[in-house]
Formats: sequence, structure tokens, C-alpha cells
Amino acid sequence: MSTLSEVARRAGVTSATVSNVLRNRGRVGEQTRQRVLEAVEALNYRPHLAARALAEGRAPTIALMVSSIANPFYPEFALAVERAARTSGHFVIICNTNEDPHAGRAYLEQIAGTLSEGVLVMNANLDFDDLRKTEARGAPVVLCMWERPDDPPGLPCVAVDFRLAGQLAAKHLIELGHTRIGAVVGSKPSGIHASRYEGFVDAMREAGLKVPAKNVRYAPDTTEGGYAAARHLLEHDAKLTAIFATNDLPALGTIHAAADLGRDVPRDLSVVGITDIQLAQQSRPPLTTVAVPTVEAAELAVSLLRELIERPAGKHGAHQKAPRVCVTSAPQLIVRGSTSKR
Amino acid sequence: MSTLSEVARRAGVTSATVSNVLRNRGRVGEQTRQRVLEAVEALNYRPHLAARALAEGRAPTIALMVSSIANPFYPEFALAVERAARTSGHFVIICNTNEDPHAGRAYLEQIAGTLSEGVLVMNANLDFDDLRKTEARGAPVVLCMWERPDDPPGLPCVAVDFRLAGQLAAKHLIELGHTRIGAVVGSKPSGIHASRYEGFVDAMREAGLKVPAKNVRYAPDTTEGGYAAARHLLEHDAKLTAIFATNDLPALGTIHAAADLGRDVPRDLSVVGITDIQLAQQSRPPLTTVAVPTVEAAELAVSLLRELIERPAGKHGAHQKAPRVCVTSAPQLIVRGSTSKR
Repeated sequence: MSTLSEVARRAGVTSATVSNVLRNRGRVGEQTRQRVLEAVEALNYRPHLAARALAEGRAPTIALMVSSIANPFYPEFALAVERAARTSGHFVIICNTNEDPHAGRAYLEQIAGTLSEGVLVMNANLDFDDLRKTEARGAPVVLCMWERPDDPPGLPCVAVDFRLAGQLAAKHLIELGHTRIGAVVGSKPSGIHASRYEGFVDAMREAGLKVPAKNVRYAPDTTEGGYAAARHLLEHDAKLTAIFATNDLPALGTIHAAADLGRDVPRDLSVVGITDIQLAQQSRPPLTTVAVPTVEAAELAVSLLRELIERPAGKHGAHQKAPRVCVTSAPQLIVRGSTSKR
Repeated sequence: MSTLSEVARRAGVTSATVSNVLRNRGRVGEQTRQRVLEAVEALNYRPHLAARALAEGRAPTIALMVSSIANPFYPEFALAVERAARTSGHFVIICNTNEDPHAGRAYLEQIAGTLSEGVLVMNANLDFDDLRKTEARGAPVVLCMWERPDDPPGLPCVAVDFRLAGQLAAKHLIELGHTRIGAVVGSKPSGIHASRYEGFVDAMREAGLKVPAKNVRYAPDTTEGGYAAARHLLEHDAKLTAIFATNDLPALGTIHAAADLGRDVPRDLSVVGITDIQLAQQSRPPLTTVAVPTVEAAELAVSLLRELIERPAGKHGAHQKAPRVCVTSAPQLIVRGSTSKR
């Protein structure tokens, strides 16, 4: 592989000039610029990213930590992150923690601040102490899709009003005339879906409706988890006419459970989810859901991370301010075929 | 961040000894080893991956080029690659080409040989010339899941006998008594699904059955593509009792099309796919499919790539040999609920 100085020699300029041309910096005359580009072409020179990153004390990638790349939401989000990152020439390293904080720590220790100049964290079940250590080592961290805009995590984040999403889902079912509504919550009671469930309860209370504990099931955030939880709900209360699930995968599992119990969706049972992953529109019936602004959240997260990389808090005396919280636009109900009038 | 020499100073040894301890190389006494590890701990030293990579002329990641991370097969494959790579401490950079050879070239030029020491290519629609240039720059390339074991691509690859997969799918339908069988092919006639279709035709011919051109549709390799193609087939030949799709997504689209036309799967129409992605068992009815050994292919690909990284062809005079082809074990039929007797 040829070097910067070989390019400089061939073009009859200094290495600094070659560098300026390649990075559109400094003032270089058009003829010189052409001569440099011809030399680059002739020698098949490629700037050595790792070397450049070292020279600048920066690395040219950002890391995206996700809890499971096999959950279809994460690839959709990763794609949006990658598109946003690529506009500034950044490459995205996707790291799977598989819900394991130890794997997450290993990734953070190996990658953050060396290979990657910043870290996006998407529900990766990471220890906040590990994230603060990563920040302290000079690699900014941004949490993507924080669930509680009003209760910031103490780290920079992009927040989505998931409580509102839960409210919108419940209001839709209530407006359709449903009163006996079950809930499948895709996390533990204190887990990341708690605010969605709270929104559901808000709307139910406001309509004067009760949610007896027996009509709520906490389950893994998967199709299978939703399937088992919905089967349990439907087998224990035959009068349920609707089920709210805190995420699309358990909502799809709920549709499967209804089918296996011989209950037609939406005639016998209405089902609503949250997120609007691609599978939501591909299912039969297509899933009514509250869409979360995934692409917007990805773009905000990348943009916030870039800001933190370019203007580290310490250098501007801003590190005593509270970490930034960017809130996305509101989630929106999308009515499809899985809900109907009672 | 502390440096190797600070660790060495604190432990009272040379930098080379610290390096040996951290990499389990050379002979170091147990007491010295302990002293080095304590110094590493006390100083919170992390080896600088990019620096180490530079020093060795190697980089510590491998790149996985895929055509669309949003297609559910690729995340499943990426997960398997990542697990295989992590056993040797490699991190995986997932690069989406979005079916665009230019994006693919940009990734190869930016990443291969600098950030990544090798490249796995998974159906990323890349220009073979670009891949050979990548090899020439010193970053080995392995094609994952090459479709024709008997017709090697001139690059190292892991091959799967997809023609056999097509044969197995067709034989299953024929054994169930189906004779009017349509085909949805998820690529162009000369595209990557051609061998799967050839296998289907093999089995049909062997059974003395015809495949009239009107019963074959070429479509995008997506649920929507399969949906449109199957609708066309079913609307133009009401007597079809089975459809073979060359991939699971178009097979799932076929099930949706049948549902929308009021045809029950499997009572009125049997549907079979190829691959066995997670969605295959989650669909209603669950999809009968020919499973491809995804995890095995990922492990073979990572292992072949590591071999090529560790023993570059040029250094051992082996570069005149034909590139290695590893063939996985045979695809296997998995019978689920989407097929039944005619």
C-alpha cells in the first residue's frame, strides 16, 4: 500500500498539502489539487483510517450496542443509525450484548475510545456504571429511546414518550367500545415497558375502567412470550374482547394465541401493539399499533453523539450541566386490521 | 489512559514482558505474571486495539457485508458470525450495502485492510473485481453461502447445496400427491436463486411432471414480492394445489396471498420455502421449509477467514492453488403446518 509521502513526492508537494486536499481543509490551488488527486489515483493511495484516527486521537466508527440483533426491531433501528452515521462518513459497529451486561462491558472496554469514538446504547441491558466509565475514558455515550422523558437517566439520551404511546393504544380500544381489556407487558413490572403500561392504566382510569391484576401478564418481549401470556389471559377470562401489548412482537404472539384458541382477530378479539416494526404491516391481519418515530430517534441519537464527540463537555466547561435529553415527536396511532368495534 | 510502559514501570518489568503476559505468549514466571496483572488492574490499562493493530500490521475486526440488515435472515446470520468471531476475540463490523455495489465498494475501500483484517460477504451484490482488489490489498475475502458447490466463484467460499434444497422441497410436495405446483423464484432467472429453482425442476422432471412457464414467477426476495407473485399465480391458475418458493420470505408472502384470496393453507394450498428463518416457525400456519445450516455456514466462514488471515497465500507460495471451497452439510426438510396431502 502506498503512503502519504509517496503521494506527496509524486505530486511534488508536501505531505501536509496532500492531507489538506484529501480532507478539504486549508487553501490549496485548483492545479495543485488536481495534481494531488492524480497522484492519489495513480498510486491507489487510501488514507489509513486507523492511523488517521490515532494521529487525531479519534477513531472513525461509532458503536451501536443492542441487546439482540435477532429481534427484528434492532436491525431496523441499526439501519436507520447507519444511514444517519454514513452522512458524516462514520461506520457503525454493531455489538450484540445478548442481554448480558458482562458481554456489554467487554465490548465497551475493547471498543469504546479506541476503535469507536462514541457509543449508542439501544436497550442493551448495560450497567450504568460501565457507561459512565466509558464516558470518563473519553468516549461519549448516548442512550437511544429512553422511555421516560420526564425522568432523565443522568446520561445524554434520546427520549420517546412511551407513556403517551400506551395511552393512545388504550384510548383507541376504549373508543371502539371495549371495556374488558387485558394487557401483555413485555418486561418485568419495574422494567423498560413500565411506562407504556402506566399510560394504558391512565387511559383506562380516565374512562372509569378497571384493570384487575389477573388481566395483566408480564412476559418476555418476544412473539413466544406474548403468545404464552395471551393464551393465559384468554383461557382465564373468556370475556376479554381486547388485548393491549406493550410491543409489537408480543402483540403478534397474541394474534397467534387467539388463532390457536379459535378466536378470530378482530371479530372476537382486538389486539394493539406499540412500535410499528415491519412485521406489523406484514402480519395477517395487519397489526394496529402505536408507531414510534424510529428513524427520527436514530437521527437525533447520531446527531447528539456527534455533537458530544466534537465538543467534549470538559473542554467547554459544560460538564457540570445536566446531560442533554432530546425528545422525539409524539408516537402516533396507526389503525390496521387487528382492531374493530366491540 | 495509561500506557504499556507505565504498566511495565509499575510492575518492574519490560514492556515486552507486559505484552507477553497480556497475550499469553512467551515464558513468564507466575509471580511476574501476577505482578503485571496487578499493575494492569491498578492503572486501569486497556491495550489500544488500533495501536496494536497498526504495530502488527493487522486490524482487530472482521467486516461482514450484507445486502440488507432489515431482511430477517441477515441478522440471524450476523449473530452466528459474531458468536463464532468472538471466540477468537474478533469484533464484527456489519456493513449494509443495500444492494448497491457503490456503497459496497466504499465500505471495502474504507474498511478492508485498515479497520478490518478480513471480509465476509453475504449476498451483498458486490462487484467481484472490487473483492479481488480487496484481496490484493491484503484483506482476505470469504463468500458465505455460495449457491453452487460445483461451480466455485474463484474466491474462497462456503458453499451450500441449494440445488438439493430445491429438490427436497419439490419431492416433499410430490410425495404429498401434488402435481400442479407453482414456483415463486426470489431472484432474476439468472440470479442467486436459479440453482434452487433448477433443483425444483429436477425433481418435477424426475416425477414426470411439467412446470409450464406460466406457473413460474420471478419476484423480489421479500414477503411483498412473494405476495404479489403468488397472487398472480393463484389468480391465473385456480387448479394449483401447491407453491414452492425459493426462500422463506416469499413463502410467507404466498401464505398471506392465499389467505387474502380465501384459500386455506394447507387445506386448499400447500406452501414450502427454503432457509428456516425464525419467522418460519412463528407464522400461522408454521412454514414447512428446507433448513439451511446457517450456524454451520457462519462458523465455517469465520474459520476459513481466520485461516486466510493467519496464513496469507502469498507467504506460503499457495496463491497459485484454487481458492478454498468449504461445503456445509446438506440442507434438510422440516415439515410443519403449511403443507398437507392433496
